[in-house]
Amino acid sequence: MTVSKAQLKISDSEHLRRCERLLEYVQAEKLAGVVLFDSDYILYYTGFAFIPTERPMAFLMNAQGRRALFVPRLEVEHARANALVDDVAFYLEYPGDPHPMAVLAEALDGLGMKTGSLGADGDGYPWILGYRGPRLSEAGAAAVVPIRAFIEDQMAIKSPAELALLRESCRWANLAHTLLQRYTKPGKTETEVSQQASAEATRAMLDAIGPIYRGQNAFAEGAIAGYRGQIGRNAAIPHALANNIVFQAGDVLVTGATAPVWGYVSELERTMIIGQPTGEQRRFFEHMVALQDTAMAAMEPGKPCAEVDRAVRAYYEKHDLMPYWKHHVGHAIGLRYHEGPFLDRGDNTTMEPGMVFTVEPGLYVPQLGGFRHSDTVVITGDGVEMLTYYPRDLESLVIPA
Amino acid sequence: MTVSKAQLKISDSEHLRRCERLLEYVQAEKLAGVVLFDSDYILYYTGFAFIPTERPMAFLMNAQGRRALFVPRLEVEHARANALVDDVAFYLEYPGDPHPMAVLAEALDGLGMKTGSLGADGDGYPWILGYRGPRLSEAGAAAVVPIRAFIEDQMAIKSPAELALLRESCRWANLAHTLLQRYTKPGKTETEVSQQASAEATRAMLDAIGPIYRGQNAFAEGAIAGYRGQIGRNAAIPHALANNIVFQAGDVLVTGATAPVWGYVSELERTMIIGQPTGEQRRFFEHMVALQDTAMAAMEPGKPCAEVDRAVRAYYEKHDLMPYWKHHVGHAIGLRYHEGPFLDRGDNTTMEPGMVFTVEPGLYVPQLGGFRHSDTVVITGDGVEMLTYYPRDLESLVIPA
Repeated sequence: MTVSKAQLKISDSEHLRRCERLLEYVQAEKLAGVVLFDSDYILYYTGFAFIPTERPMAFLMNAQGRRALFVPRLEVEHARANALVDDVAFYLEYPGDPHPMAVLAEALDGLGMKTGSLGADGDGYPWILGYRGPRLSEAGAAAVVPIRAFIEDQMAIKSPAELALLRESCRWANLAHTLLQRYTKPGKTETEVSQQASAEATRAMLDAIGPIYRGQNAFAEGAIAGYRGQIGRNAAIPHALANNIVFQAGDVLVTGATAPVWGYVSELERTMIIGQPTGEQRRFFEHMVALQDTAMAAMEPGKPCAEVDRAVRAYYEKHDLMPYWKHHVGHAIGLRYHEGPFLDRGDNTTMEPGMVFTVEPGLYVPQLGGFRHSDTVVITGDGVEMLTYYPRDLESLVIPA
Repeated sequence: MTVSKAQLKISDSEHLRRCERLLEYVQAEKLAGVVLFDSDYILYYTGFAFIPTERPMAFLMNAQGRRALFVPRLEVEHARANALVDDVAFYLEYPGDPHPMAVLAEALDGLGMKTGSLGADGDGYPWILGYRGPRLSEAGAAAVVPIRAFIEDQMAIKSPAELALLRESCRWANLAHTLLQRYTKPGKTETEVSQQASAEATRAMLDAIGPIYRGQNAFAEGAIAGYRGQIGRNAAIPHALANNIVFQAGDVLVTGATAPVWGYVSELERTMIIGQPTGEQRRFFEHMVALQDTAMAAMEPGKPCAEVDRAVRAYYEKHDLMPYWKHHVGHAIGLRYHEGPFLDRGDNTTMEPGMVFTVEPGLYVPQLGGFRHSDTVVITGDGVEMLTYYPRDLESLVIPA
């Protein structure tokens, strides 16, 4: 009898299937192998999570499927313990002497990747935190072929295991948001409420999931909920940076909540109002919910993403709301909190089952505030399923004054 | 009589002086102007802070010194209120129709920047969160000349106003670290202690500085202190990702604390030990402090950065400590938490007064733990001044078991 233990991660076999699909592409394109510098891609293919710095790291795979991770000395033990690769190659330090790219050239040589075209996500390590160095094509690669589009397309279709992690993320974002709403009161500050909600939700998540929990995400640590300064009139500015605002009756609030689970993040945002809503607040709120409903009704497999944005724009125009428009309907989400494709009239990617999007059309009204919910949804066989499930109606989102 | 109000920011006149220096370079190099996409550079020249996403933003300045910010529709009000520029140009959305780069081409034309060479920090907007688009050289620039090296050199020398912000950052990092040490006890978890210390320090900072406080930094919100998983044996892995470890007597701990002030961040890290240190722990701790002293004694204007790393390596070698070496001595710091130049034997940049570095040589001992302090110091006329001032001696850093 096999006894499997509970786990909350992408399995080794799924990581290997991802690598096999990449290998098929490498072989079909007659490449000598791939070099990937992007930390999200390295996590996707090897399970190894890290925060990118000026010290280059790379995932290497040759055309025979041999996989290596290239890291600085200080990441060697971490990589050996956590990365699903055949070899860990390392350099001493950046900028170092020799430079890391000289050491990478040797590793490429060892894998037989210095002749023929190399698939890569960039011609060299990107300019991160002051990094400077030669291009990959100067470090011994015979030719470099961009490979990002293939990888992004592969990552865009989520597997059942990925959807399970996203559902888990929604669970803890929901807790953080519930506490955020509960603790928000006139006279309290944004900072204290966000801290209290996020700290309690994080501790509950860690105690509920226990030692198998891994966040694996550089963007968010723990379950978090907050306002990012989108309070009162400031809520008319999306993505404002937080500034410790004191809540007042009459404020329109725009929230945000998420939780990383094995690298995956969901997005939950709600518009809340402190005190009895005015007629004007009610009107914009109801239009915003209708915009979101319009978007979700337009989402189904086989249609282009652009069509969702066009359907939503038609609603804005029909109701004279274009003066309050500021951005498209949404973006894909997964290991990154923004991914392509985008629900934008300039994006003609076809929606497919397993793609996960945020749905977040907004209305930004000068002197009144911003109105935006964001839900995370997955494309199904015939429409969408909402992964987030926090109440969307106005009555549920009024804070007593 | 002029009455100036208290402020905690870089003044408009300092921003303008920075732009003037850049303009001198543009004119000396006979460029048609500059295009900068990097969010740190945009903050440095315009005072406008934002979190970079797949929606491109850029700072434009032509050879006559006219300055513009190029933003998506949703950032227009935010940019008009906060960016020190002559114009704000905008596009509707990314990927959009037309694509943002087509709109940028028009803005370049309007500034007379489409003939001649353009200085830029990259040939197009970088690949961030799924962004895809044409190169700058495909969007109408006649020729693109890299300009990062000039900007990095300019940013590396901190002004008195910048040093004042870094000192303020050190103040609140010191508070967060003091609370972290106070709350750390056997049986408590990393997460609860870090949350409590960071939350209290942040609230105290916001109340002490009041409404003039602006963090302006995407990396850190508020004063934070924590362990990033560097606890007990895990402390032998620098930069481990946090995993809610329970503290135990005998643990070697490596901390980290900072606070963003108008974008600027300092770095404070300490090694602490729970319970009476063993002889072995004491020996590695004292060597680590001596390594840090060796580094600071080697720092003075006119000498190359590499020499500091060489002096420290000589100490490692003299005392047979190279098996415990994992990284160079430190890095510059300011608006970014890692900047160049690096205190690394491969970096021959000359140290100059006003350069700010972390000093953080470490010892990583398998089965025992990591030993690393990090202090933030500024190069003076004849040596260094330590901006961080938390106790460095072992007796001050023992946690009662």
